[in-house]
Amino acid sequence: MSLLPLAPSLKPFLEEYLPRPGSNRPFVTLTYAQSLDSRIAAKPGEQTKISHLETKTMTHYIRSKHDGIMVGIGTVLADDPKLNCRFEAEDGHVSTPRPIILDPTGKWVYNKSQLRSVCDDNKGLAPFILIDDTVTPRNEDVKIIEKQGGAYVKLPLARSSKRVDNWKVILAKLFQLGIKSLMVEGGASIINDLLIYNEIVDSLIITIGPVFLGKDGVEVSPPGHADLIDVKWWQGIQDSVLCARLT
Amino acid sequence: MSLLPLAPSLKPFLEEYLPRPGSNRPFVTLTYAQSLDSRIAAKPGEQTKISHLETKTMTHYIRSKHDGIMVGIGTVLADDPKLNCRFEAEDGHVSTPRPIILDPTGKWVYNKSQLRSVCDDNKGLAPFILIDDTVTPRNEDVKIIEKQGGAYVKLPLARSSKRVDNWKVILAKLFQLGIKSLMVEGGASIINDLLIYNEIVDSLIITIGPVFLGKDGVEVSPPGHADLIDVKWWQGIQDSVLCARLT
Repeated sequence: MSLLPLAPSLKPFLEEYLPRPGSNRPFVTLTYAQSLDSRIAAKPGEQTKISHLETKTMTHYIRSKHDGIMVGIGTVLADDPKLNCRFEAEDGHVSTPRPIILDPTGKWVYNKSQLRSVCDDNKGLAPFILIDDTVTPRNEDVKIIEKQGGAYVKLPLARSSKRVDNWKVILAKLFQLGIKSLMVEGGASIINDLLIYNEIVDSLIITIGPVFLGKDGVEVSPPGHADLIDVKWWQGIQDSVLCARLT
Repeated sequence: MSLLPLAPSLKPFLEEYLPRPGSNRPFVTLTYAQSLDSRIAAKPGEQTKISHLETKTMTHYIRSKHDGIMVGIGTVLADDPKLNCRFEAEDGHVSTPRPIILDPTGKWVYNKSQLRSVCDDNKGLAPFILIDDTVTPRNEDVKIIEKQGGAYVKLPLARSSKRVDNWKVILAKLFQLGIKSLMVEGGASIINDLLIYNEIVDSLIITIGPVFLGKDGVEVSPPGHADLIDVKWWQGIQDSVLCARLT
């Protein structure tokens, strides 16, 4: 299905929250869609439609502005996502980011994934899969991914006592690999972890869909209080979008 | 502190969600302020500022359009609220609703409350306190409240097997007592209970403040999925407001 056109007011609304060059680490945009009761899925492992077509186009537009899109292994196993970009710039160019999968224990069977087919069809870039350096990925998956131009990236993910140090290791490595801007899309454990690190997250873009998913849903709520600055709201017909920065 | 003027765009925004006469039960507006992560307080029993001055005025404006404001005993004990209305109509008139306290087991010591002082100073109406009909309220509190024009209202609150029947009993009694429109402000247990009853709730007005209160906060999330219709968003400088109806 093709995307709706981007609402004209969204471009200026988003502009100051999109990546700017010039840093020595990736610019990190944390973005997700939640229900009013701050759920990103109705149940663990269940893909749930929360946002509407008006903001779906926005997600693809934001993807087009980043070098990489990160999701955790939980989201990959639940959604089997394509992680490509279908937003066409005015000149017809489609700028597709690199999928970055955080899969420390190597759970993902890549050769059976939808992303593999997307890459075989040249409709998206092959992923970088971040695994702990004590884990050996499946040989078959290594071959496919390397042929497609992606890679398994081994990192000391399990050994930092501070979680923020883990993120610094990840971002430094991604920067070396040419990822100057990273859009983090989920899932809940990654979002909840990052929401308290203002030294990691540069922009926050949250879509709120007008629905309650209920207490058994997958919740976004950080371990503690987090204040926001530079707050701006956009109102669609169904959805509302917040842009802000962590303070 | 006096209120800011009501933002001019709020009056038409709210209009179709405010009480309309002509029903045989109270028109119920469910309204509260939440953080992005759907918390209405940082901790149980801790009063937490979430919304900003722009939407504080709105709350008093909405109060002025209702005959009664309901809060649960948990909120009363945590916040010791005044529950009056400080919004002046254009002609200078202040229309103050009746506080309705849902206190089934009779926990509240009224004579020490801020609301008692507000009523002694003629700055608000004395409450109706809803208690289970097996509970005997404190004699001293009965005398003060009756002198001020309020009442303890005894109802069979603990004996309905269905919670929705409890609400029907409450609303029928309040209607008899002249409450044709009821604004329900909290706390979380009342909100979570009501969010699934579209036969009880006529309008939903939710203010979202741009902050995360974190996982230990007091959460709003109903027992199950709840869809909304007639959705409208208002954007302030800091806060966003959603108006909708349950479907």
